[in-house]
Amino acid sequence: MKWGERVMVLREKVLEERPLIHHITNLVVTNITANVTLAVGASPVMAYAPEEVADMVRLSRCLVLNMGTLTAGEVDAMLLAGRAANEAGIPVVFDPVGAGATPFRTETAQMLVRELQIDILRGNASEIAALGGLHANTRGVDAGEITIPAGQLARKVARDLKTVVIVTGATDYVSDGERLLAVDNGHAMLAAVTGTGCSATSVVAAFRAVEDDGVTAGAAALACYGLAAEHAGAVTRGPASFQVALLDALYNLRGERLSSGVKIREL
Amino acid sequence: MKWGERVMVLREKVLEERPLIHHITNLVVTNITANVTLAVGASPVMAYAPEEVADMVRLSRCLVLNMGTLTAGEVDAMLLAGRAANEAGIPVVFDPVGAGATPFRTETAQMLVRELQIDILRGNASEIAALGGLHANTRGVDAGEITIPAGQLARKVARDLKTVVIVTGATDYVSDGERLLAVDNGHAMLAAVTGTGCSATSVVAAFRAVEDDGVTAGAAALACYGLAAEHAGAVTRGPASFQVALLDALYNLRGERLSSGVKIREL
Amino acid sequence: MKWGERVMVLREKVLEERPLIHHITNLVVTNITANVTLAVGASPVMAYAPEEVADMVRLSRCLVLNMGTLTAGEVDAMLLAGRAANEAGIPVVFDPVGAGATPFRTETAQMLVRELQIDILRGNASEIAALGGLHANTRGVDAGEITIPAGQLARKVARDLKTVVIVTGATDYVSDGERLLAVDNGHAMLAAVTGTGCSATSVVAAFRAVEDDGVTAGAAALACYGLAAEHAGAVTRGPASFQVALLDALYNLRGERLSSGVKIREL
Repeated sequence: MKWGERVMVLREKVLEERPLIHHITNLVVTNITANVTLAVGASPVMAYAPEEVADMVRLSRCLVLNMGTLTAGEVDAMLLAGRAANEAGIPVVFDPVGAGATPFRTETAQMLVRELQIDILRGNASEIAALGGLHANTRGVDAGEITIPAGQLARKVARDLKTVVIVTGATDYVSDGERLLAVDNGHAMLAAVTGTGCSATSVVAAFRAVEDDGVTAGAAALACYGLAAEHAGAVTRGPASFQVALLDALYNLRGERLSSGVKIREL
Repeated sequence: MKWGERVMVLREKVLEERPLIHHITNLVVTNITANVTLAVGASPVMAYAPEEVADMVRLSRCLVLNMGTLTAGEVDAMLLAGRAANEAGIPVVFDPVGAGATPFRTETAQMLVRELQIDILRGNASEIAALGGLHANTRGVDAGEITIPAGQLARKVARDLKTVVIVTGATDYVSDGERLLAVDNGHAMLAAVTGTGCSATSVVAAFRAVEDDGVTAGAAALACYGLAAEHAGAVTRGPASFQVALLDALYNLRGERLSSGVKIREL
Repeated sequence: MKWGERVMVLREKVLEERPLIHHITNLVVTNITANVTLAVGASPVMAYAPEEVADMVRLSRCLVLNMGTLTAGEVDAMLLAGRAANEAGIPVVFDPVGAGATPFRTETAQMLVRELQIDILRGNASEIAALGGLHANTRGVDAGEITIPAGQLARKVARDLKTVVIVTGATDYVSDGERLLAVDNGHAMLAAVTGTGCSATSVVAAFRAVEDDGVTAGAAALACYGLAAEHAGAVTRGPASFQVALLDALYNLRGERLSSGVKIREL
């Protein structure tokens, strides 16, 4: 099956099965990631209380951990939810927002990767580099400079951490340490809207919920999301109308319009 | 007076009196419910600190409690605010998001209903069933399957809990245990946007602030909100543009355009 | 240089330098203020954990403190971040949301102004009056009635607190206790959207990051933001489409379209 068709089939599967995606995420993107999850056809639930995270995660098909506005209490909830997910065989997708920017974030991200079995790790280049123990210089929550090319970075950190790694940027890279896929879908305006990386993580989680192979799920999700961004970018001239159009496009992107636009390369 | 006119009169009253609506609500919908409250003509305030919730509620005309992303600290704030509201005779509208999904949520919702005098309870069918002690199977924060028809459910739980109960769905039901109203306004796209139920609760609170009869206030609010959704659905093709159009329609819906579209039935 | 040109030059400087703006802000506006910060060309970061706020603020060019949904834990984070900013010479912009509404808010705001060196204070008339120890009657988080004209209020409180004070309203006033500027840009629809005041504060912070004179930075920021609102108001008919258009306009407002629309008066 060609990549275009594979993406289309997975997207239909998300719509059909409507998997519940449990998020422990940050205060900036709570609403937009819930809406993105709905737009792609999955069902979001946000739950943070230590009293219920383990129960909620067991109802879910995938767990998203996102440390964008991390607090100590949230770290506890993430550990509880992550362990419950690991025990129940529910995949964990981790978004280490801002790793590399402050010691607290870098150390927390490293601790979560050590303590939990992460199924997919998604970040920008400097966040992933920080987790891989490479020199990184994350600027707040935006990517800083790193010296290793993003594709190599994805493969190296995936091998080191024994997980699927996604490095997003102008081109996205997905690797499990052996295979390496590049996704060329996307649009420059994504950088002008907050939470578009976090939203990509939610789409990855939705696809991962219906597809066991993390590399396939990750690349398919990013192609679908990136293509929706291309459609949105073609009809808007500013970041807020772009965001509205992005969600609309994601909701409506099916069939041949989806499959024919997918740009995934195997490296 | 016919229902269409009643809804129109109440909506004008909200615009005129601009009642302050105190929300203790969840992290997913904080922004959108504030904007919906403004769009319908009321004034939202979100305040959570135990140090001030009682003071803030006394400045308000209605208190909304919404447990979408409940934490233990928030439960304390809800109790403090709810008791202050009860003492001051300020109506409390309760949205038991996700009751039935985890024991923590179900038990907290039941405790709040027991400890506080709730004026209006608004939820989807499985949330209301969970509060009524019926078998429910809430799926994250979405309605699960229940066996009793929604109208009967509203009346039964209203009678049991001695409060006005609103069960929202394709048709909304409002009952005080005796009277039962059905509201047929609404649009399928509401299910594709997060927080539309929570937003309905805010509109109910705004109407309740200017109308003492909870059944009338509840049905009128849902008709107004549902009609705005119909207008939005008629001009949009995706969930994000729908949400934008919904708020715009709610803001602009007055006079004959409002009164002529109201679909309320007395059962 | 004329004001129109000055605003244009500062706006270009924001775009060029892309200053990182650290926010400790409220739950209602986290997303929208991040997007407004991006739209004007700066880079937002939201970080709250006591473990990292001092580290994060040292990476930033300006710190925004906004107490819209204040909790005791957040007050601690604000003090830590504020002190680190003061030590490092990073300007602090303070938005005392709801000061005057409850004793907790008024006292916290007064304490922060006492303990920290605030560079710019931005609020509506009753919030600023509450901080100036004048009789104020803040209605939730909306402006209540005060007896002193807003321009005089700005100058008086600026003198008393030895800081730049911005009082926003139909006309905005900016003063350092001596100079007094009035900004006539803006649009009535700003009052129908939540967080437009908080967003103005973010724009002020972005301009202040690239301009040492707080009066100039404040007036320029408000003119730019208000002019974007005028453009948005001209093409929309409701609050949600207005908000979308406002961010788009802010993103695109440059050159002659910006400079020719600026309405700043020196009083």
